[in-house]
Amino acid sequence: MRGQAFTLGELARQVGGVAVGDADVQVGAVRPFDEAGPGDLTLAADPKYLARLAETRASAVIVPPGTEAPGRNLLRAPNPRLAFAQVLQIIHVPPYTPAGVNPLAVIGPGTVLGRDLSIHPGVVVGCDGRIGDRVTLHPGVVIGDGVAIGEDTVIYPNVSIYNRVTIGRRVIIHSGTVIGADGFGFIFDGGRHVKVPQVGTVEIQDDVEVGANCAVDRATLGATVIGRGTKLDNFVQVGHNSVIGEHSLLVAQVGLSGSTRVGRGVVMAGQSATNQHVSIGDGAVIGGQAGVTKSVKPGAAVAGTPAMDLRQWKRLQVLAARLPELYERLRAIEARLEERMKDEG
Amino acid sequence: MRGQAFTLGELARQVGGVAVGDADVQVGAVRPFDEAGPGDLTLAADPKYLARLAETRASAVIVPPGTEAPGRNLLRAPNPRLAFAQVLQIIHVPPYTPAGVNPLAVIGPGTVLGRDLSIHPGVVVGCDGRIGDRVTLHPGVVIGDGVAIGEDTVIYPNVSIYNRVTIGRRVIIHSGTVIGADGFGFIFDGGRHVKVPQVGTVEIQDDVEVGANCAVDRATLGATVIGRGTKLDNFVQVGHNSVIGEHSLLVAQVGLSGSTRVGRGVVMAGQSATNQHVSIGDGAVIGGQAGVTKSVKPGAAVAGTPAMDLRQWKRLQVLAARLPELYERLRAIEARLEERMKDEG
Amino acid sequence: MRGQAFTLGELARQVGGVAVGDADVQVGAVRPFDEAGPGDLTLAADPKYLARLAETRASAVIVPPGTEAPGRNLLRAPNPRLAFAQVLQIIHVPPYTPAGVNPLAVIGPGTVLGRDLSIHPGVVVGCDGRIGDRVTLHPGVVIGDGVAIGEDTVIYPNVSIYNRVTIGRRVIIHSGTVIGADGFGFIFDGGRHVKVPQVGTVEIQDDVEVGANCAVDRATLGATVIGRGTKLDNFVQVGHNSVIGEHSLLVAQVGLSGSTRVGRGVVMAGQSATNQHVSIGDGAVIGGQAGVTKSVKPGAAVAGTPAMDLRQWKRLQVLAARLPELYERLRAIEARLEERMKDEG
Repeated sequence: MRGQAFTLGELARQVGGVAVGDADVQVGAVRPFDEAGPGDLTLAADPKYLARLAETRASAVIVPPGTEAPGRNLLRAPNPRLAFAQVLQIIHVPPYTPAGVNPLAVIGPGTVLGRDLSIHPGVVVGCDGRIGDRVTLHPGVVIGDGVAIGEDTVIYPNVSIYNRVTIGRRVIIHSGTVIGADGFGFIFDGGRHVKVPQVGTVEIQDDVEVGANCAVDRATLGATVIGRGTKLDNFVQVGHNSVIGEHSLLVAQVGLSGSTRVGRGVVMAGQSATNQHVSIGDGAVIGGQAGVTKSVKPGAAVAGTPAMDLRQWKRLQVLAARLPELYERLRAIEARLEERMKDEG
Repeated sequence: MRGQAFTLGELARQVGGVAVGDADVQVGAVRPFDEAGPGDLTLAADPKYLARLAETRASAVIVPPGTEAPGRNLLRAPNPRLAFAQVLQIIHVPPYTPAGVNPLAVIGPGTVLGRDLSIHPGVVVGCDGRIGDRVTLHPGVVIGDGVAIGEDTVIYPNVSIYNRVTIGRRVIIHSGTVIGADGFGFIFDGGRHVKVPQVGTVEIQDDVEVGANCAVDRATLGATVIGRGTKLDNFVQVGHNSVIGEHSLLVAQVGLSGSTRVGRGVVMAGQSATNQHVSIGDGAVIGGQAGVTKSVKPGAAVAGTPAMDLRQWKRLQVLAARLPELYERLRAIEARLEERMKDEG
Repeated sequence: MRGQAFTLGELARQVGGVAVGDADVQVGAVRPFDEAGPGDLTLAADPKYLARLAETRASAVIVPPGTEAPGRNLLRAPNPRLAFAQVLQIIHVPPYTPAGVNPLAVIGPGTVLGRDLSIHPGVVVGCDGRIGDRVTLHPGVVIGDGVAIGEDTVIYPNVSIYNRVTIGRRVIIHSGTVIGADGFGFIFDGGRHVKVPQVGTVEIQDDVEVGANCAVDRATLGATVIGRGTKLDNFVQVGHNSVIGEHSLLVAQVGLSGSTRVGRGVVMAGQSATNQHVSIGDGAVIGGQAGVTKSVKPGAAVAGTPAMDLRQWKRLQVLAARLPELYERLRAIEARLEERMKDEG
């Protein structure tokens, strides 16, 4: 895919890097190292690719500071991967242009619409809400009553947002995600489960991104909260009354039970899960498929089910793999003692 | 959020409890213990909160029978959590009022509509179905041909229901859920997977609640069944031809393979899963992330992958954590025997 | 459910089998062995049912070659399960009849439509795409700009397909699935996660089936690929830049991290998952809930987290279950040595 063309010098300026070689060379696409050709920019962030700089046919390469490659056009950047993300944005992501409010969208009475919106056909918005400036609602998005959505937020097709949810600014919500469905709360009585009405809400703060087909349940009372700058991958389950801090990452298929507290800067790897009411401290790292059954200290790294210190888990894995040897050694000792008994017999 | 105001005496009467103190005090919201203020009702169901009754600013507190708190207004209830659920319903959930059949909904020919419906814009219903009285279909709901939906059922936005599925009365289905997609059935032949047409159906019985983004596959032949009063959390996968009994709970991200039998009153904790054709007896409890590879007896509690008796699993966890000590003891014995050999040498 | 009626002889002819008994008997439904009655065909593929051939009330039974059952009408087929799939198709799946392009569907400018389409109300298709002949788009399907969809593909309700995705011929995509949402890519910088724009795409090849509520993310650069004839169950997560070979099976709730390579003819059982950048060789089998942390050789069978050779995993499970005995034996040895010390003391 071709994007908009820029000179290497202009890109270097925009990302705070330095152009080396022909600063006037034009690049109009970012492509993988081995596929890039003339007119393309590529990335060589690690030794594997840096050793192969001579091989790429790209017109220019993003590299770390200090990289030398005579005859190549380079974009030296303090953080090459960050510069890569930035040039992708510059070259390949066209600036926002409002599509307007399509006549095939339905907007409920009392809802206040901002300026420069893109509300596509098939969108249904309830009553008494507020849609901020430059919000994009793709086709099939359904927004309940009393929902507030901040400026520059993008909601992809077929997302469902229940009544009274609050969504911040510059939030991205991918298709199929459900925000504000009822938490899973029942009281067992007389042989049946009586529903506990879930009358709380959900608050998604600024700069959050929620992947495809996630579910963030509304609180029983109060709010389920996703903190500013936190990113959720696909299929993440956030139980009612859970609170996630700022700038955390929850990878695909993570499951948070009800009333989980997740701190700031936490990373939860794929398919990990928590028991109800546990707390995960700031900066903790939860391993893939881990089952967190009790609270995790700030900065800790845990793995396994039930989750334990990562180093301990690794050590136990090694020892478990040696179980056959263990049984063998035990048998050898027993045989030796038996032999001795006989000798002494 | 404020709801409708009631006197404490009226609420006590409605939930079968006893008002103690000022039965005429008005409450118009239910709020958490530490946030409640004048005009609010709160809950103190366990010793932790009962010991702090003097601290809440709530106008009244739901408490267990026998609770004394001079100067406080109490609602003594036999089951305080149940009373809490009931007052939430009374105060915060407005009674059903039909919204009618929106002209922007599409209803196929031959479908019989009940009375007092709420069919919102963007709904598409197929042919030859039956929609019971007071059913709510939120925007973006798509219903196939020949689908029957019982009275008072609520289906949230963007739910998809395939042809010929049957949904009972007072059922709740949350957004993004898919009922009746094809089961995963293929025959390997000549290097490719030939689809086994899934010509059965799904039957969701009365009083079932299905969370957001679930998938209940239709049977190859016959029906996949979810029994009366059973509740599914979000992301629950129900494979084709599975049958779930009455009043069971399946927590988020549970996966049932094809032809699983789940009994009555079963609890499956989050991310647990079953192999095909296993049976889980009435009242069994399956631990979080457990992998059920063979049938589970009624009343049993199991954990782990492959799932085993919960007590055995806990014991093995403890013993596994002691593996480093085990290796150390073994090494000590070997050293001792070696030493002795030398002595005897 | 009754389908279209055929004579046993005609069915035998169509599936390449042999009719035994009354080739003129009419069957108009396929039903389970114990429920089938007059006018029904059923299947007896394994010894369990073959031993009970006398019991079924079905008008005819599909059986393996060489099966004898005097007085019964048989359809002898080389692969009875395949014949079962084929007769289900013949009897129960009506031939495709185009429904046309509904006036309540929205088709963007520049999109080229094939012939004999079924585009239902509430569908939104973007600009500059291509929809092949006989494609079915069910209500609520949203297709972005520049999407190509091959002939005879069926997309069920409320599926979302992002811009520039390519879908092959005879593909089936079930409800709620999301194709082409952004991969989970961020660069941590200055305390926040900077989004890496995902400017690649997704390519779904011919004869793929994708279950309900799946998510296949678009690549950062290049394409995420699902190879020809591969089948995904429900809730399968395919991370950005992953490539899946031909004729593989990914069972429900499988999670592929970014840049996973899955070979041809691979089977990944339910809830299994991969780390980033691992490779799974052709014909490998991954056990349920396995966590694949490093590459798997072609033809290998693995289980556990971290995933290991299946036989080793089974052996370790057996040995782990014997840990109580191990501790007991160790204690006995220690006691014996202690006793001896005393004796010698």
